[in-house]
Amino acid sequence: SRSINLAVIPGDGIGQEVVAEGLKVLSAVLPQDVKLETQDYDFGAKRYHATGETLTDADLAQLKRHDAILLGAIGDPSVPSGVLERGFLLKLRFAFDHHVNLRPSKLLPGVSTPLAGQPEIDFVVVREGTEGPYTGNGGTIRKGTPHEVATEVSVNTAYGVERVVRDAFARAQARPRKKLTLVHKNNVLTFAGHLWTDTFNRVAQEFPEVGTDYLHVDAATIFLVTQPERFDVIVTDNLFGDIITDLAAAVSGGIGVAASGNINPGREFPSMFEPVHGSAPDIAGQGKADPTATVLSVALLLRHLGYDAEADRIDAAVAADLTERADKPARSTSEIGDAVASRVAG
Amino acid sequence: SRSINLAVIPGDGIGQEVVAEGLKVLSAVLPQDVKLETQDYDFGAKRYHATGETLTDADLAQLKRHDAILLGAIGDPSVPSGVLERGFLLKLRFAFDHHVNLRPSKLLPGVSTPLAGQPEIDFVVVREGTEGPYTGNGGTIRKGTPHEVATEVSVNTAYGVERVVRDAFARAQARPRKKLTLVHKNNVLTFAGHLWTDTFNRVAQEFPEVGTDYLHVDAATIFLVTQPERFDVIVTDNLFGDIITDLAAAVSGGIGVAASGNINPGREFPSMFEPVHGSAPDIAGQGKADPTATVLSVALLLRHLGYDAEADRIDAAVAADLTERADKPARSTSEIGDAVASRVAG
Ligand SMILES: CC(C)[C@H](C(=O)O)[C@@H](O)C(=O)O
Ligand SMILES: CC(C)[C@H](C(=O)O)[C@@H](O)C(=O)O
Repeated sequence: SRSINLAVIPGDGIGQEVVAEGLKVLSAVLPQDVKLETQDYDFGAKRYHATGETLTDADLAQLKRHDAILLGAIGDPSVPSGVLERGFLLKLRFAFDHHVNLRPSKLLPGVSTPLAGQPEIDFVVVREGTEGPYTGNGGTIRKGTPHEVATEVSVNTAYGVERVVRDAFARAQARPRKKLTLVHKNNVLTFAGHLWTDTFNRVAQEFPEVGTDYLHVDAATIFLVTQPERFDVIVTDNLFGDIITDLAAAVSGGIGVAASGNINPGREFPSMFEPVHGSAPDIAGQGKADPTATVLSVALLLRHLGYDAEADRIDAAVAADLTERADKPARSTSEIGDAVASRVAG
Repeated sequence: SRSINLAVIPGDGIGQEVVAEGLKVLSAVLPQDVKLETQDYDFGAKRYHATGETLTDADLAQLKRHDAILLGAIGDPSVPSGVLERGFLLKLRFAFDHHVNLRPSKLLPGVSTPLAGQPEIDFVVVREGTEGPYTGNGGTIRKGTPHEVATEVSVNTAYGVERVVRDAFARAQARPRKKLTLVHKNNVLTFAGHLWTDTFNRVAQEFPEVGTDYLHVDAATIFLVTQPERFDVIVTDNLFGDIITDLAAAVSGGIGVAASGNINPGREFPSMFEPVHGSAPDIAGQGKADPTATVLSVALLLRHLGYDAEADRIDAAVAADLTERADKPARSTSEIGDAVASRVAG
């Protein structure tokens, strides 16, 4: 019989609330014969304040035993900027080699966008997750003096670039429009730009059916607001991906509905799924958070584990729920979770 | 008697056409007693193909004698990506220490925006222009092999960060709303992030009237489309500034109206003014290009040289022209230039 052994990291702020709804929907959608086991982990601001720890080697060893990880949100104003980001979120992505950071953007019916008109938006960003300026390379000399110099080094390897570019081509190939856009800044960042562009052009020859395109990251932000329908799959580096996926989320319904997967495609390590939004401490504990992004992250998780039919059912239920929700008064976090769970329940 | 000795670099594609209109408006707005001298320079793709040169030391020595530089656009598909960007545009910014890259975003009446509603947009981005990942630091090893590593180094100095932060505070102080937002990614790029954040907070103490705010660059892209009215002055690094100013231009009427100044505030070197848009070779020579961004860049140029009243007259004429234009059939490049020139003429 089949089973899913899930690590659950509710985290900080609204993380707790949205993860509860994600799990509710997950339980409801799974067939009877799939045994779901979950284990909670208390990472985040509270544990950091209590122990000074963010993510230890022992934690990583424990997490590694799971099939996948569901995360709510990590971050709290009481913790200095960077401590939990570098010490937990990025440490986990790097330790588990989450090199494919998958972020779909789809403007669902009933969802409002800040853009005029109601453009058709349905694309996915494949963001590199283990290189670029996120490696922590760099440093500071003469700190705090008028002669301080601080550097950040973007590291790009043929190995790292090729595997994510190849993954993106395969995803583009599997979609109806079969179009892949490379986003970089190869006219200025010429060293990394050459590597990305050359790799992209070389791998493209193995995917003759996929149409290709290149945009500088600055131009990409323009098209994301003026012509979002032009995008199908985008592949880009870690930092550009961070920036354009927040913008993509904003134009396609907001971060309340933006899901993401931090994926290790070879499954040497468990992949992690999380909403793009943060911990939103200002609305935490009030039942105001929209769990939709977490629920859609659960769908990505299921698809990664091979439960495609169940993932499709969640996507369809969310789309139906959003359409219905459009004319109604705002519902609470758990009301939304209940509604989607009852739609997916066999 | 007063005089302006201007270097004119029409450049490639539509550069020629838009610069002609910029000069037309400049001549029309200047009082009789101001002597305008211009000298044309043929930098760009054509010269590169003919001579292999982009910008020589002798060129720089010549340019240095001018009071300011007006540039149309540089770039052509016939030149490999990066050659003219690094070899001309960035070389000039670095050689003339253009550390304040000023990019105002104002949604003028009659101008359409991709955003729903007609939000009030009136902010200015102060982008650092001589550091960050634009320095060309970095390199490639094992090029073209499966073991290639390409790096890009973002260089940030206390000297470089403080002067641009100080400039931004002074600009915020001079505006009615007196608000300055630092945009960075200090939770991930912690070395540079500390330097930027600490410098920002320290200089803030000298400007007690200026309200301050901090946003991660990814969050900033969200607010630029959902709440652009929240911004007054933004200060940010070279790469983040490149990205968010294209987005800012897109939401506030498009790059057809986005002006910029590459400024050396101490005037040791001539500052350069240019539209944010590129050379648009697809519409070059057809009289289709909108010269408004170049005309507004001329206003920035005049303000930099102390001709505030004339700059104000250009801004007002452009605003009036855009309002009138809204209901009319499209006009040609020179018709727009003529219309604005006749409005500013004393
Ligand atoms: C919180 C931060 C480390 C993270 C990132 O920059 O990747 C976040 O912005 C995201 O996009 O997941
Ligand atoms: C053309 C390029 C070098 C330039 C930049 O990246 O600064 C352009 O995008 C700009 O914003 O002026």
